[in-house]
Amino acid sequence: MIVVLKHGIKKEEVDELATHLKALGVGIHESFGENTAILGLVGDTSGIDAESLKANHLVEKVMRVQEPYKMANRKFHPDDTLVRIPTEEKDVVIGAPNFTVIAGPCSVESRDQLTGIARAVKLSGARMLRGGAFKPRTSPYSFQGMGCEGIDLLLEAKRATGLPIVTELMSVKQLELFDNVDIIQIGARNMQNFDLLKELGHCGKPILLKRGLANTAKELLMSAEYIMAGGNENVILCERGIRSFDSFTRNVLDLSVVPFLKRETHLPVIVDPSHATGCAWMVEPMAKAALAAGADGIIVEVHNNPEMALCDGEQSITPAQFESLMKKLRKYAAIEDKDL
Amino acid sequence: MIVVLKHGIKKEEVDELATHLKALGVGIHESFGENTAILGLVGDTSGIDAESLKANHLVEKVMRVQEPYKMANRKFHPDDTLVRIPTEEKDVVIGAPNFTVIAGPCSVESRDQLTGIARAVKLSGARMLRGGAFKPRTSPYSFQGMGCEGIDLLLEAKRATGLPIVTELMSVKQLELFDNVDIIQIGARNMQNFDLLKELGHCGKPILLKRGLANTAKELLMSAEYIMAGGNENVILCERGIRSFDSFTRNVLDLSVVPFLKRETHLPVIVDPSHATGCAWMVEPMAKAALAAGADGIIVEVHNNPEMALCDGEQSITPAQFESLMKKLRKYAAIEDKDL
Amino acid sequence: MIVVLKHGIKKEEVDELATHLKALGVGIHESFGENTAILGLVGDTSGIDAESLKANHLVEKVMRVQEPYKMANRKFHPDDTLVRIPTEEKDVVIGAPNFTVIAGPCSVESRDQLTGIARAVKLSGARMLRGGAFKPRTSPYSFQGMGCEGIDLLLEAKRATGLPIVTELMSVKQLELFDNVDIIQIGARNMQNFDLLKELGHCGKPILLKRGLANTAKELLMSAEYIMAGGNENVILCERGIRSFDSFTRNVLDLSVVPFLKRETHLPVIVDPSHATGCAWMVEPMAKAALAAGADGIIVEVHNNPEMALCDGEQSITPAQFESLMKKLRKYAAIEDKDL
Amino acid sequence: MIVVLKHGIKKEEVDELATHLKALGVGIHESFGENTAILGLVGDTSGIDAESLKANHLVEKVMRVQEPYKMANRKFHPDDTLVRIPTEEKDVVIGAPNFTVIAGPCSVESRDQLTGIARAVKLSGARMLRGGAFKPRTSPYSFQGMGCEGIDLLLEAKRATGLPIVTELMSVKQLELFDNVDIIQIGARNMQNFDLLKELGHCGKPILLKRGLANTAKELLMSAEYIMAGGNENVILCERGIRSFDSFTRNVLDLSVVPFLKRETHLPVIVDPSHATGCAWMVEPMAKAALAAGADGIIVEVHNNPEMALCDGEQSITPAQFESLMKKLRKYAAIEDKDL
Repeated sequence: MIVVLKHGIKKEEVDELATHLKALGVGIHESFGENTAILGLVGDTSGIDAESLKANHLVEKVMRVQEPYKMANRKFHPDDTLVRIPTEEKDVVIGAPNFTVIAGPCSVESRDQLTGIARAVKLSGARMLRGGAFKPRTSPYSFQGMGCEGIDLLLEAKRATGLPIVTELMSVKQLELFDNVDIIQIGARNMQNFDLLKELGHCGKPILLKRGLANTAKELLMSAEYIMAGGNENVILCERGIRSFDSFTRNVLDLSVVPFLKRETHLPVIVDPSHATGCAWMVEPMAKAALAAGADGIIVEVHNNPEMALCDGEQSITPAQFESLMKKLRKYAAIEDKDL
Repeated sequence: MIVVLKHGIKKEEVDELATHLKALGVGIHESFGENTAILGLVGDTSGIDAESLKANHLVEKVMRVQEPYKMANRKFHPDDTLVRIPTEEKDVVIGAPNFTVIAGPCSVESRDQLTGIARAVKLSGARMLRGGAFKPRTSPYSFQGMGCEGIDLLLEAKRATGLPIVTELMSVKQLELFDNVDIIQIGARNMQNFDLLKELGHCGKPILLKRGLANTAKELLMSAEYIMAGGNENVILCERGIRSFDSFTRNVLDLSVVPFLKRETHLPVIVDPSHATGCAWMVEPMAKAALAAGADGIIVEVHNNPEMALCDGEQSITPAQFESLMKKLRKYAAIEDKDL
Repeated sequence: MIVVLKHGIKKEEVDELATHLKALGVGIHESFGENTAILGLVGDTSGIDAESLKANHLVEKVMRVQEPYKMANRKFHPDDTLVRIPTEEKDVVIGAPNFTVIAGPCSVESRDQLTGIARAVKLSGARMLRGGAFKPRTSPYSFQGMGCEGIDLLLEAKRATGLPIVTELMSVKQLELFDNVDIIQIGARNMQNFDLLKELGHCGKPILLKRGLANTAKELLMSAEYIMAGGNENVILCERGIRSFDSFTRNVLDLSVVPFLKRETHLPVIVDPSHATGCAWMVEPMAKAALAAGADGIIVEVHNNPEMALCDGEQSITPAQFESLMKKLRKYAAIEDKDL
Repeated sequence: MIVVLKHGIKKEEVDELATHLKALGVGIHESFGENTAILGLVGDTSGIDAESLKANHLVEKVMRVQEPYKMANRKFHPDDTLVRIPTEEKDVVIGAPNFTVIAGPCSVESRDQLTGIARAVKLSGARMLRGGAFKPRTSPYSFQGMGCEGIDLLLEAKRATGLPIVTELMSVKQLELFDNVDIIQIGARNMQNFDLLKELGHCGKPILLKRGLANTAKELLMSAEYIMAGGNENVILCERGIRSFDSFTRNVLDLSVVPFLKRETHLPVIVDPSHATGCAWMVEPMAKAALAAGADGIIVEVHNNPEMALCDGEQSITPAQFESLMKKLRKYAAIEDKDL
């Protein structure tokens, strides 16, 4: 951490500040220029609050040199994390060299709908089933998901097809219902629900953590750090689009975050082209682009009858379109030596 | 709601879609142009999901004409809502013609700190005390607040000064600790924590709802609607800055949202210049501008020793600066016939 | 165009407004709901100013149904535009089924540098040479490019290698210097320099038009429309990253704009992964992702010695990295039946 | 400027880099931590390109400590710049302690319109007349302004009322037409049209420089620096709203930029509430807030018949509303000891 001091401060003031900082457990290197004095803080600065330091009357600027995340940081953990989901057949392993495709409807709507879609996407090569039982909706008057019954239908579909399941948790109170869920999804709106993240640190299940609509890549890593600091290192990061000034898609899919995250962290990174674009016809180009950019997988919405979907029909592809997408993705995966 | 249909569709297809929509409880007006057919949906369209409608193969575009919020909508509730906080002295009433100033430290740090600040801000004219006991922090390694003990110290300061208190709730599990808190604050990161909002609909306490960092004004109103739909109409909206591409302030204080919200809704609207700017020296100009823009109050961070604050010291003003700010605000309030 | 009228207006007021609008050359369909009256404007509404219409005291909202661009609109020109650059060898044709790679240094720095890079990228398969002679720099104290001399060196490199050249024009005053330039580039900061766009409508040369940092896809199309309305239909659109709240890359490369533009317009669309990311090591994944997303080509910065580059060294790849990138791209192009 | 070096680099490599940097005219302070070596660059670093430095294989990060603007920087020019416009009556002086109100129609439409509005706003206390003769429009099919004839009508209105005039220049080619214009306005879309800025450095007239829609405060200062570096120090900065994810106003008026700029630079800062909000009814609250935030004036659109305006009618206030606004502003100005 670099602390730039204000113009014209005295040597003894600098010493006093240096003493204060040393007491916080860091080493200090002083550097005096003609107009500028600078303190370099050496050691573990992750516990030092840059904002508070800026309040000091001697301080002009504070700049971080080290990343504030440790457990998620590839520097301290060079090997890729692989998240393993046991199944009766071959285990699902998320992380290189696999490209894992997770597919299913936005919302669980009925037994027939869900199991039908599950069978179809499995045939085409999906390795996991997605489906929302608890749905975060902007309006209190919109369909809020089937709740517990939705979880039961997901578990039925899992038994029927052997596909492990991923579904969204919105509140700690629902946690016990998720005992047999394979991956717990945390949605974009809850990415900084820190109390929830802390609980997930103890839950012993892999977490699929979606990037918030206006959260930086570093904030996403800090939210992963919350879960990991609690003891749960099985975190999968997911890019699902960010907010911008334009509106031709629902959000802007930020694919450059994929290589950035792959360099900064050892955690797997997947992409959700359905929510990012909000357009069924954009799912294929964006899914292929995600693979090309280095993602470890995608999570994609598939619905047997998008026009009648209770939620997000506009962005769901049909099982036939999914089959065609998988064929394309296999060719791309072959180029990149990925297993799909 | 306006539904623009695709080019070249047949009359019987239009009829079929119209029948489907009528079954959802709305009236339909058809309008045929040379190249474009349009359906106008009349009646209560708040339950119709525009996104799903867009998935229909006949539909080109869907545009909302009516706002999706009802209870928060000034059209259906023209008079200003006043949120009343009973106190042993004169009740605090938030809403026109009052300009309510809420002040206190970012975090509760100790009994002396809190009560000292409380006494000082009361003397200068603050009507409520703020202070964080549970703190949402980006890093799991940062100070997370004093928790329950912080709530106890807030209640002590309330007894000592008579100032009602507002403090942030981060999880439903903490709700019982908030029995004697006067206003529950929901932070920007939880603005779309819908499960939490639903619970607040039943809690019988005024809610101070902060706008999320990248949430539209309409999404803020929809989150208020979640609370109101549960039966709790005492919601205070708070602008606290939004994310942008620039970084000279922590966030961009969007003051134009104040007149917009005052026109769209009957709920009170306050402004947080401390979090919006992240700079103590910007609090005064932005607080005055908030009053000029029509806000019903401000919530502002005051710390007796900002340099030693455990959190957000950079943006806290001192009691002396607060006293000076209040003098300025009184002059502005006089021009606008506001009671301060 | 849909004009939603205010509540409670009288039939004769509606008629008066309708008469006013008909005089502007459009047909009117009236539609009366319980609370809402709506006028549907039929015909060519591209000359009607929605903003002005909103100022009318009877009008609540105005919503466009048709796109305001005509010459750039695929609806009225379904076939792909191919931009042909004659060369002494095989002509360069930009547009499907070709994937055209344009490469070269950010700035022209010297004869040796430029010709050396030109030879190298040609060997690896680049079809055009890029290089800046006039450089838009945020600071007046930064290197502003070699100017006319830079143009001369580009023309020398063209003669030496046979590669046609693309370089940026910043002012109408430079236009005569561009007589032998093959494609004129308009940079992001000049995308809405409308006087310049008008001139380009008459210049008879293909234009590479970059999307502005905070411009919508529709504004990009409107700027292309300016050029086309002047008689020049050879416009190539270029995505080069947009501004966001995050800073891990210089900008956010918006790849979803590629399929969007390919659907909305018949003009070719290319991607600049170098400026978008500002990082040499991100160029390869983003270039591959651009091809996967459906782009018609890329424009990429290559420098023989990035560490000594006078401009944008950080984002330049070396000729060796470019050679490796081209090998990868050929495999991707084969999957998509693109000629590279 | 702080240069953070990569982990594990050798002393002789550091020395080599230090030598290279010293050759660029700066002094170097080396600082070695356990894991991190840092170079502090001392002296005038405004000519060093941080981006290029980042391309060096030894460099991890580069952070600026000093601002890259010099002539616009208040550090080197503590006193406020006052921009003086001579008139036959009392000169107009823009800058503290004056609050200068510039008013007039968006576009010049006719002699009667313009002179009528000019007389009205002068009576209410406006000190300058605004009006567009050359209009930057997103669509080539929209009204583009009256051009030279518009300039003539502005000069007539100036003679008739004594009000000096400000109008927008879009191209160097129009410069000779602006001989008798008092202030040349550069619009948001041309804020980084660097060739135009360079020309303005020699034109000898005050420049009203509007902030671009997605430009940072520092980029605005760098654009002012372009003009000042050419010898023209009469630059007035203007905040007119920035782009965001929300759409309830046309742009987001960023009032916190006012105190920021007033601290960073000695140049006057004014606010355009009309373009920022795009709503006539928001002009009054935002104009008052601008004064409260510390602005040196406003530029506001006034039209005698907003419903019939050829451009931007929605955001124009009437002369009567302007009169009422001025009365309010006088009360605010009195509090802040500003002359209005």
